[in-house]
Amino acid sequence: MATMDDIAKRLGISKGTVSKAFSGAGDISEAMRRAVLETAVELGYTRLPRSRQAPRLGVFIENMSYEHPNDFGWDLVTGFRKLAEPDGCEVVLIPLTAELQRQNHYDEYMLRHNYQGGLFLGTSFSDAWMEEFRSCRTPTVLLDNSAQYNPAVSQVGVDNDEAMESAILRLKKLGHRKIGYISGGLGSYVYQQRYLAFFRALRKHRLGDDHLLAGHSFSTAECLQTHLPRLLEQGCTALICSHDLLARDVMHCCQRNGLRVPEDLSILGIDDLPICQSTSPTLSSIRQDRTELGKSAYYALASQIRQIHISSLKLHPEVILRGSVGPAPDVPGEL
Amino acid sequence: MATMDDIAKRLGISKGTVSKAFSGAGDISEAMRRAVLETAVELGYTRLPRSRQAPRLGVFIENMSYEHPNDFGWDLVTGFRKLAEPDGCEVVLIPLTAELQRQNHYDEYMLRHNYQGGLFLGTSFSDAWMEEFRSCRTPTVLLDNSAQYNPAVSQVGVDNDEAMESAILRLKKLGHRKIGYISGGLGSYVYQQRYLAFFRALRKHRLGDDHLLAGHSFSTAECLQTHLPRLLEQGCTALICSHDLLARDVMHCCQRNGLRVPEDLSILGIDDLPICQSTSPTLSSIRQDRTELGKSAYYALASQIRQIHISSLKLHPEVILRGSVGPAPDVPGEL
Repeated sequence: MATMDDIAKRLGISKGTVSKAFSGAGDISEAMRRAVLETAVELGYTRLPRSRQAPRLGVFIENMSYEHPNDFGWDLVTGFRKLAEPDGCEVVLIPLTAELQRQNHYDEYMLRHNYQGGLFLGTSFSDAWMEEFRSCRTPTVLLDNSAQYNPAVSQVGVDNDEAMESAILRLKKLGHRKIGYISGGLGSYVYQQRYLAFFRALRKHRLGDDHLLAGHSFSTAECLQTHLPRLLEQGCTALICSHDLLARDVMHCCQRNGLRVPEDLSILGIDDLPICQSTSPTLSSIRQDRTELGKSAYYALASQIRQIHISSLKLHPEVILRGSVGPAPDVPGEL
Repeated sequence: MATMDDIAKRLGISKGTVSKAFSGAGDISEAMRRAVLETAVELGYTRLPRSRQAPRLGVFIENMSYEHPNDFGWDLVTGFRKLAEPDGCEVVLIPLTAELQRQNHYDEYMLRHNYQGGLFLGTSFSDAWMEEFRSCRTPTVLLDNSAQYNPAVSQVGVDNDEAMESAILRLKKLGHRKIGYISGGLGSYVYQQRYLAFFRALRKHRLGDDHLLAGHSFSTAECLQTHLPRLLEQGCTALICSHDLLARDVMHCCQRNGLRVPEDLSILGIDDLPICQSTSPTLSSIRQDRTELGKSAYYALASQIRQIHISSLKLHPEVILRGSVGPAPDVPGEL
């Protein structure tokens, strides 16, 4: 592994100057500072925490959007801090904006701000740093996202195949034979994974794999106005939605159109956000334990920092049936 | 969660008697002891470690066989103990025999011997307890094996898809276009996973998916006498083997028949056992860091005991090229 000496040698400067560049001392030029950081990244230098210094970890949170509501991120960060802070780490929350990514190279940014590792909540394929994650050296954990085979990057999330298989099994036991799936936009890695897992699970449970049984769009309006009517016309008696907020909107849309939930149609979300318990009827969901995801993310990041290269850490999901799921309407005799 | 009181009530006995059954006290009958344990399992009772008592963890090791040599298990157990013992756990090694599994139900065995969790190295589909792992309550970690969706069971191993994709990418860059795969018997979960991953990786790298490019057998003789000549006749210039010992035997067999390694044929094993460095030429391999696998297994088990239900924890593998891999013989111009 490259040392400060290597950086100094490469640039023909003293080790003291390298050290000043890292510590943000005022008496070196910005150009020299940049040269040091760029050389550090080029040589694969990783900054180890000094023994008496608390490791600093950056938690990057994408702008809270419709698809990644506050609830989800907050519990996760709490779980992460519950393990990180007793371990002596300083946890810094950083909004992950497009601008931040455009103006900085990832490894350089982390070195400059003295972060030993980064956790990312809610990255999407369009994020500029996704490309950098393929070859970055900074210990990094992505929630529900994957960087192709970079040993320094770990993926943490729930097992989507298990989630879909368990959900479809429960619905099948209730007599549902035609199950549909409505998803948010497939620009998100996790929605892509869930979409593929839905079809794998259908095939596994011998419910066919007709691609018309699913619809996806970044726009909720399109999900409600195009995909929902189409799936209902095809005779779906149960619908799984890629996230709870979409499931809630689908349920309300059906109810406004005179459908009874769950008598005419069963609906199941994913994530088990607190809103699931306040809809009418209450919303069934596939639970991701957000606090435990946060703790797992800390474990993966702490391991990366100790040079244990975890590729993926997945939690068991749990299917929670509430008021929005009932027996299939057309097969009362079978139950 | 069921308590000792629940067990006492169900059997109409005192809590003291239940406690005696667990502690192995001499003054209750074997029949009563068995009744208590069976009821405990039926009610889903899990024994929590008392605050002043070190948790006891059982590490089950299958009889050391050709396919699971000592090397592999030992480093793994060492990694596991390195984290478990400073945490105050007592680690007990237990030979996993067919007899042990036939004569005991798993949950009952663990309760009777006061183990709070179990790690299994080297289970195969034929193990009687595999069926019990689908519904057991004891926190359990399987190395390189999977129990269909039981929240109490975690799987730990390397990412086989990443391993195969990385290996095939490296061979492709050396000009190899026809790459074969020889595997041990597919009664082993990990060999099954690697076999499937081999074909997924071939497809991903656009090298076709001809099923004749692979062969598998429990018998090394069959691998050497049937599959090896067949793959060579098909024009394979590189062979990946499901484990290092098989790769070594394949290499020796080729050399005895006048083939030069790597000039005529490149050979790559999996596991990176110490023997890789003592063959001639030295054997290339896909490295699994055994110590880190052991540490990861402890983390998964400790999480299970704390009710964090990890489904899978996979490590990044590392392709290590040594003397046994070289450029493809037929395409010198391309290099």
